[in-house]
Amino acid sequence: MALIWGRNPVVEALRADKSVERLYLAEGLRPNPVVDEITRRARALRVQTQYLDRRALDRLADGANHQGVVAEVEEFEYAELDTVLRRAQTAGERPLLLLLDSLQDPQNLGSLIRTAEAVGAHGVVLPRHRSVGVTAAVAKASAGAVEHVSIVRVTNLAKAIVELKAQGLWVLGLDSSGAQAYDEADYSVPLALVVGAEGGGLHRLVAERCDLLVRLPMRGRIASLNAATAGSIVLYHAFRCRERARNAFN
Amino acid sequence: MALIWGRNPVVEALRADKSVERLYLAEGLRPNPVVDEITRRARALRVQTQYLDRRALDRLADGANHQGVVAEVEEFEYAELDTVLRRAQTAGERPLLLLLDSLQDPQNLGSLIRTAEAVGAHGVVLPRHRSVGVTAAVAKASAGAVEHVSIVRVTNLAKAIVELKAQGLWVLGLDSSGAQAYDEADYSVPLALVVGAEGGGLHRLVAERCDLLVRLPMRGRIASLNAATAGSIVLYHAFRCRERARNAFN
Repeated sequence: MALIWGRNPVVEALRADKSVERLYLAEGLRPNPVVDEITRRARALRVQTQYLDRRALDRLADGANHQGVVAEVEEFEYAELDTVLRRAQTAGERPLLLLLDSLQDPQNLGSLIRTAEAVGAHGVVLPRHRSVGVTAAVAKASAGAVEHVSIVRVTNLAKAIVELKAQGLWVLGLDSSGAQAYDEADYSVPLALVVGAEGGGLHRLVAERCDLLVRLPMRGRIASLNAATAGSIVLYHAFRCRERARNAFN
Repeated sequence: MALIWGRNPVVEALRADKSVERLYLAEGLRPNPVVDEITRRARALRVQTQYLDRRALDRLADGANHQGVVAEVEEFEYAELDTVLRRAQTAGERPLLLLLDSLQDPQNLGSLIRTAEAVGAHGVVLPRHRSVGVTAAVAKASAGAVEHVSIVRVTNLAKAIVELKAQGLWVLGLDSSGAQAYDEADYSVPLALVVGAEGGGLHRLVAERCDLLVRLPMRGRIASLNAATAGSIVLYHAFRCRERARNAFN
């Protein structure tokens, strides 16, 4: 939880669909276009709003120039890639990571995080740019799974793949150009599965770094699936293969 | 393609997200709240709009009282269950149907239809009531797959299951209460897969009619998946099992 203040930072947080938990407004605050937008958006998002006197706001904002507007926002806590790998190791499990190449749709990102959580993946890796981050809409679409699976942001996904390979992970990219069907690959190894953006598939540099590209065989006329659906199908297949392999060893 | 006329039918079609293909308005049509809503919604939906003189509109509406407003709407053509089964038989294929128990979200319905089309399912069956139908939003979410897979509406899904069983299909329900994991079932037989609504799972009467209930095993803390994701995972698994069985026979 963090506090932000000032009309513009608060209206931006509301616009950017960040989790604004609570809004504090100065009693007798004069209406103006930005203040009106803040109250309108806060109402639409059902943000709890409280009116305080100026001195109480001054204390909250630590004496800063709050312009009569202070908000409590929840900042999403991203994890570090090293930590995620170390945690898998400590648990005595072979890493299973989901890497997402530039997803744009919060609904798709949320669904994929939900599936990743359901199968016990150790982490989800997103590029810092060219991708939606963990916003309130993503958290909602994930049914709260964002709180239970580690999510990592990296500056460069292709570089992250190189690092993961150096750490002994096998990197499997899902792409319609893949030579093999997804269910002909080996999922029992330490694994990172890379899923591409809606429509676009994997970026060339990302695809080139993968150890193997696999595709989802199709019989229909529409030659692609929803990105969240496609990723979830392969993730579940990986999960079930690993469960079977684990049971076979025990 | 069908023509509808009158201010209320046309505004309702626009509101209900039916595919309005083209809008014809009388030249010199007087603004009023309904007319304004029609033109506003048509603009937002990018519906082609054409102004015609009254006599041309009279001809389009066959002399009916069109109030200066006529629209061309695309009516979705649902298939009949018998036709779908016969078509599978004619193709020499074992039927694969997807039955959806009261889905509410157009995005989920569209995604599932898209997956059903991708795996070459013979049809998708929806209850006429308590479920979203094939609206323009569903068509969009399906990436156009609604045009390539037969979609059937039935009055009573539990009754339809009884009919399908009488026709020799094996009915597999996906439900968190399922005794078996989804990938322990036999998918090589003529098959109807039943997927439940978001959150609610299968209705009791529907679940009771199934030959077997299967579940998606999970390891995470969020004990459910998105309905479209869950259905797609099992549908793909069925598809791949059947492909393998087919290849083994050839």
